[in-house]
Amino acid sequence: MGSYSVVGKEIPNVDSLVKVKGAALYAGDIKMPGMLIGKILRSPHAHAKILSIDTTRAARLPGVKSVITGKDTLGVKYGMWRVRPELLDEEGLAMEKVRFIGDAVAAVAAIDEDTAQEALELIQVDYEPLPAVFTPEEAMKEGAPLVHDGFEGNVSVVRTINIGDVEKGFTESDYVREDRFVTQPVQHSSMEPHVCVADFDASGKLTIWDSTQSPYFVQVLLATTLGLRENDVRVVKPHVGGGFGNKVEMFTNEFCASLLSKKTGRPVRIEYTREEEFTVTRRRQPEIIEMKTGVKIDGTIVARESRIILDGGAYNGQTPTTLLLSGMFSLLPYRIPNYRYHGSRVYTNNMPSGAMRGHGALPPNFASEVQLDLIAGELEIDPVELRLKNAVQTGDSVPGIANEILSCGLSECIKKAAEASDWQRKRKQLPEGHGIGIACYSFTSGGIFNWFNTDLPFSEALVKVNEDGTVNLYTRAPDLGQGSNTVLSQILAEELGIKLEDVKILAGDTETSTADLGAWSSRLTIQAGNAVKRAAFDAKGQIFEIAGERLGIRLHEELDAKEGRIYIRERPDKAISFAEAVSTAKRAKGGMPVMGRGAYTPRGKGLVSAAWSFGAQVAEIELDRETGIIRVLKLTTAHDCGKAINPLLVDGQLQGSAQMGLGGALSEQLLFEDGRVQNPSFRDYKLFTAADMPEVESIVVETYEPEGPFGAKEAGEGLTIPTGGAVSNAVLNATGVVFNKLPITPQGVVESLEQKA
Amino acid sequence: MGSYSVVGKEIPNVDSLVKVKGAALYAGDIKMPGMLIGKILRSPHAHAKILSIDTTRAARLPGVKSVITGKDTLGVKYGMWRVRPELLDEEGLAMEKVRFIGDAVAAVAAIDEDTAQEALELIQVDYEPLPAVFTPEEAMKEGAPLVHDGFEGNVSVVRTINIGDVEKGFTESDYVREDRFVTQPVQHSSMEPHVCVADFDASGKLTIWDSTQSPYFVQVLLATTLGLRENDVRVVKPHVGGGFGNKVEMFTNEFCASLLSKKTGRPVRIEYTREEEFTVTRRRQPEIIEMKTGVKIDGTIVARESRIILDGGAYNGQTPTTLLLSGMFSLLPYRIPNYRYHGSRVYTNNMPSGAMRGHGALPPNFASEVQLDLIAGELEIDPVELRLKNAVQTGDSVPGIANEILSCGLSECIKKAAEASDWQRKRKQLPEGHGIGIACYSFTSGGIFNWFNTDLPFSEALVKVNEDGTVNLYTRAPDLGQGSNTVLSQILAEELGIKLEDVKILAGDTETSTADLGAWSSRLTIQAGNAVKRAAFDAKGQIFEIAGERLGIRLHEELDAKEGRIYIRERPDKAISFAEAVSTAKRAKGGMPVMGRGAYTPRGKGLVSAAWSFGAQVAEIELDRETGIIRVLKLTTAHDCGKAINPLLVDGQLQGSAQMGLGGALSEQLLFEDGRVQNPSFRDYKLFTAADMPEVESIVVETYEPEGPFGAKEAGEGLTIPTGGAVSNAVLNATGVVFNKLPITPQGVVESLEQKA
Repeated sequence: MGSYSVVGKEIPNVDSLVKVKGAALYAGDIKMPGMLIGKILRSPHAHAKILSIDTTRAARLPGVKSVITGKDTLGVKYGMWRVRPELLDEEGLAMEKVRFIGDAVAAVAAIDEDTAQEALELIQVDYEPLPAVFTPEEAMKEGAPLVHDGFEGNVSVVRTINIGDVEKGFTESDYVREDRFVTQPVQHSSMEPHVCVADFDASGKLTIWDSTQSPYFVQVLLATTLGLRENDVRVVKPHVGGGFGNKVEMFTNEFCASLLSKKTGRPVRIEYTREEEFTVTRRRQPEIIEMKTGVKIDGTIVARESRIILDGGAYNGQTPTTLLLSGMFSLLPYRIPNYRYHGSRVYTNNMPSGAMRGHGALPPNFASEVQLDLIAGELEIDPVELRLKNAVQTGDSVPGIANEILSCGLSECIKKAAEASDWQRKRKQLPEGHGIGIACYSFTSGGIFNWFNTDLPFSEALVKVNEDGTVNLYTRAPDLGQGSNTVLSQILAEELGIKLEDVKILAGDTETSTADLGAWSSRLTIQAGNAVKRAAFDAKGQIFEIAGERLGIRLHEELDAKEGRIYIRERPDKAISFAEAVSTAKRAKGGMPVMGRGAYTPRGKGLVSAAWSFGAQVAEIELDRETGIIRVLKLTTAHDCGKAINPLLVDGQLQGSAQMGLGGALSEQLLFEDGRVQNPSFRDYKLFTAADMPEVESIVVETYEPEGPFGAKEAGEGLTIPTGGAVSNAVLNATGVVFNKLPITPQGVVESLEQKA
Repeated sequence: MGSYSVVGKEIPNVDSLVKVKGAALYAGDIKMPGMLIGKILRSPHAHAKILSIDTTRAARLPGVKSVITGKDTLGVKYGMWRVRPELLDEEGLAMEKVRFIGDAVAAVAAIDEDTAQEALELIQVDYEPLPAVFTPEEAMKEGAPLVHDGFEGNVSVVRTINIGDVEKGFTESDYVREDRFVTQPVQHSSMEPHVCVADFDASGKLTIWDSTQSPYFVQVLLATTLGLRENDVRVVKPHVGGGFGNKVEMFTNEFCASLLSKKTGRPVRIEYTREEEFTVTRRRQPEIIEMKTGVKIDGTIVARESRIILDGGAYNGQTPTTLLLSGMFSLLPYRIPNYRYHGSRVYTNNMPSGAMRGHGALPPNFASEVQLDLIAGELEIDPVELRLKNAVQTGDSVPGIANEILSCGLSECIKKAAEASDWQRKRKQLPEGHGIGIACYSFTSGGIFNWFNTDLPFSEALVKVNEDGTVNLYTRAPDLGQGSNTVLSQILAEELGIKLEDVKILAGDTETSTADLGAWSSRLTIQAGNAVKRAAFDAKGQIFEIAGERLGIRLHEELDAKEGRIYIRERPDKAISFAEAVSTAKRAKGGMPVMGRGAYTPRGKGLVSAAWSFGAQVAEIELDRETGIIRVLKLTTAHDCGKAINPLLVDGQLQGSAQMGLGGALSEQLLFEDGRVQNPSFRDYKLFTAADMPEVESIVVETYEPEGPFGAKEAGEGLTIPTGGAVSNAVLNATGVVFNKLPITPQGVVESLEQKA
């Protein structure tokens, strides 16, 4: 790995100071002359035909500048799965019917928020309510109402995986068990809501300042739905206050703000209320998982079948991908030679599901990890031993899905987590009401399959080298707070041999950057990172060529650079400064700027990911049998992120993941009743706050991932995955009762204990 | 010249719609969270020693966040003439003494404007007044107080030009006359004042949104005075409401806003009041011109001597250049074989002089043109004939100063202006009190001599070609309203063979662009235009290479492109679309973006300019002998701008120049009394408004300038130059009285007529 001067260092986030000082500009901070406020009218019905919409009274209200309905749109259906056009099922504003409570029906732009709100109340929509379906089981029944025509049984997508011979595997197993698991819908709960300011200029070009995880997707989808060319739309990502998967797609606020700006010729701002965040954006998909696993008497897994029904809600969004990932993570992180997966993504009249941190993996991981502990109990094998026996190893592959896994530190993670949590001792000696449980996981480092159907590379980078030795990095990769600006700057500085403070990064603006698909599936460190590394290498070549001449050597491959010094590798005293080399290189080319270009698209790595992270988590809990309250005493995690480009940021991700993982395990749940969210506020929807957090011990297990820049892979999502399983297994350990439904609430605990007694 | 599809068309300014709709964002529109308002404390003395400054009371005022004085600065002396460090005489805030009324002494940042203003009043400065000098004649006397130590007689710069043998020339002349002329200080009067928002971020990098004509100069000078590297300063030029030469340099608001932002960690905005605009920025230099000209009996000019004293005020700024230009334009636009120039730039305790539209040329042109009419009268030659006889022609040069002039339409301009104004008839037949006069002029198309001492090319451009056929142009060239965004977009579209609407220009942001010196000396069309044309050519080569393969030809030189179609020149039916060629070209290079780069620095063109514009103007006036009021009935102008890239914008420039020219001729004048401006408001300082304007007829005389893109040269400044001379000559024609002082006021007319009577 060599010795690095910037990579691998605990460097504070380059954006943190400006944020803690309150000086960071978010989309909601943008004020423009003449800016209007937009609001969206939403359906009160879960399923209804729109008979008519009367906007005349709203349009007459003083201060209202425009009112739009589906008729003002081009009626283009859009979505994320552009490789399969029949899955594009969303409309900017509903044309003929509404499909969930909150579906967008009309929008207004007015001089202020109160006027916009009043105008919404003056719009009269005549609906014909239709019968609706609220659970996937109902929806799949024969004769159930169809949410979208043409999808019998409301199944929009089926995904299957077949590896080996599952039936034969079960026959050859010594022990086979089958369990059913249910997971809940969860909200991403970014502190910053969806917010944008759209400005359609007089020349017909659109600029939108947007809180988004993918300036590129928003650019393309706005162009598609508004009838523009892609580059007539400029998406600028200011600072963003979190996304967690809920800002990957184009949302109605982006579409309506843009169309209203076009109609009014003025900038239009639309910010979602917290209630809108909870009810009309996306949620983590609820799943019903039937898992059947066969093992040898020594615990070796021989076969598994996973059948999943995914409540996708009213629109597909990214859930066709979710469904594949759920199939993948019913298997990984274990070696399962015979595996069968059948997943159904089902339309219901609920809020749409979508991607969320740990995309697709949480429900099947919960099922797999809890079932493994039931098997361990049955076979009287220590859960740690059972996992070590079946853990994926470097060099493994998943036929047809994942090509060779080039780095895997899972076994080491299991051992380290067990050791740090004092597993061996505690598993046997915990006091009454205490329990300890383990769960393992794997996650992607950047999606591969091109469901968005882009012609562009997945990531590109441009590097401009200035005469004073500073370097500008232009990338479309958006930092949402996760730290990609810092990591990409480190990669650039290391590759180019300069100091971190010499890098200025301009990120997430489509106008100043070239291709990048956005911040999701933990893709930026590997995909954007590789593009940045290549662009830096390209620029370095241009400078080394001249530096080599100055240092009197013929092959510039003999040179190296570090911290702003270029030197002969074998004679480190023979050196010139980076700035001097740059200005010589520029003069040699008539002053022309030194520009480096780089691009990366993963190739030959299978269907899902270019690399895989792994980890293990141990939860130690204390349970009050009377109140049902579970107190987590400690979470111990070991995570294999390849080379940690920045251990400080990795730790931050691991801490944040623990908080989100605990919420999903113990408290977070969107409650639906006939399609209506019952708890759309932070008063009723319970997050784990900093004060609620137990001790969290994070162990970084470094491996070297050959596909990643400097050996790096994912660190931002994987660790959200195991907590449901680890906590449930700890409760099983404490009580002997299995909890196969998330979240594990005090009420559920009390009921289960009563049933057992 | 070929046939063009974008160049030469009357295309409305690409920014005009957004401006007329009030949606354009200017620096003063920028609001940022936590933004403070800055104000500057200014000297009430024209010349004084600073004994002490007590800021304690101001700093204690609630709401005041920072108070700075010279002691808080690095004390770096700066200026524009970096090739001669001894001429760098300005300080961010005065260190030891003040040199004019309005010199900056301290600055505050507070939560609002009222608090900032109140804080200024609480700062106590103890001055020791020094004797001051207010006219250059006083200043040059032996024993006069020195404004800056080390400059005897307060002369900071002397410039001389010597061509041929002047003494011999006068001896050989049939008629020699000598006159003295005086011109006034004039204010630029941009509608938008100097305004900026500076934001020093926590990482020590500075971003400034700035109303400036040169993001580059501001970047470098802020870096110099604040001890930063150039690229740690980002200058962003939003829409700008005019500059006219007064926003080329770095001003105190830019320096103080940046330093206050550094001290407070918050964004700081400083906007000059109109009074500050009038008193502490820059002014057109007042000159005293002694001109001696010898001619043959037929009117052929044989020799000229020009001696100029330039009141430069308290600091050099750009006036060393002004002084050279005044020497140059004592000669041009005429052939003068024997010429001697002696110019002195003198320090006084007045407001500093600087560049203004028609930089350096107005005073000597006024002198020369009025003197020519006096000679014409003496020799009884028609002024038009006299000018035609002496007019510079294509192929001429000015030894040691200007190499071969490759395009010159002056004679044609004179003829056309005379014809259109009905000169021959009117010169003889005008009624009592009416007069008609002519003046000619020449101007630069972009400065050459590198007085700023930059290592960079004078202009660069980057062109990014997108797959949808759109193109991004990145340039540091700032559009101030003059239309460079439009002209550069046209040049790009024409060269690349695409439509204008396919170009998106991002201009004037140092972070997203490479070198450009800024908008001054009418340099952008030629210098930035050449860089853009070269960058487009570079990108075109990359696309043609692939398009050629697709069209089955070996040499892509056989291709041509127009309006988004690439075709074989000899077989225009064989074509592919630009967008298709781009996406093929990108695929051929692994998706790597198509980027074009271009750079231009004028070479081998002498000391002053790469090309020269020419023109002639006829003024017809009516004079009321009783009130002295002069009414201009019509201005007729013919201007040689080479190829007019956009005739609509050329006409706009000519109209605006006429308005500014008339103001300088008849009404505009900053009145000073002991160094204090007496009329610092639009109530007392009289501009020509739209309603005051006479009929203006503008004739564009197109030539082909080989150095310019598509043959283009200057159109934005030259026409401001002749109006003083043309009007004075018309008054001479009407009254027989010579007016050798600007402006020609009603009071002056009455007094002169009384003297004559």
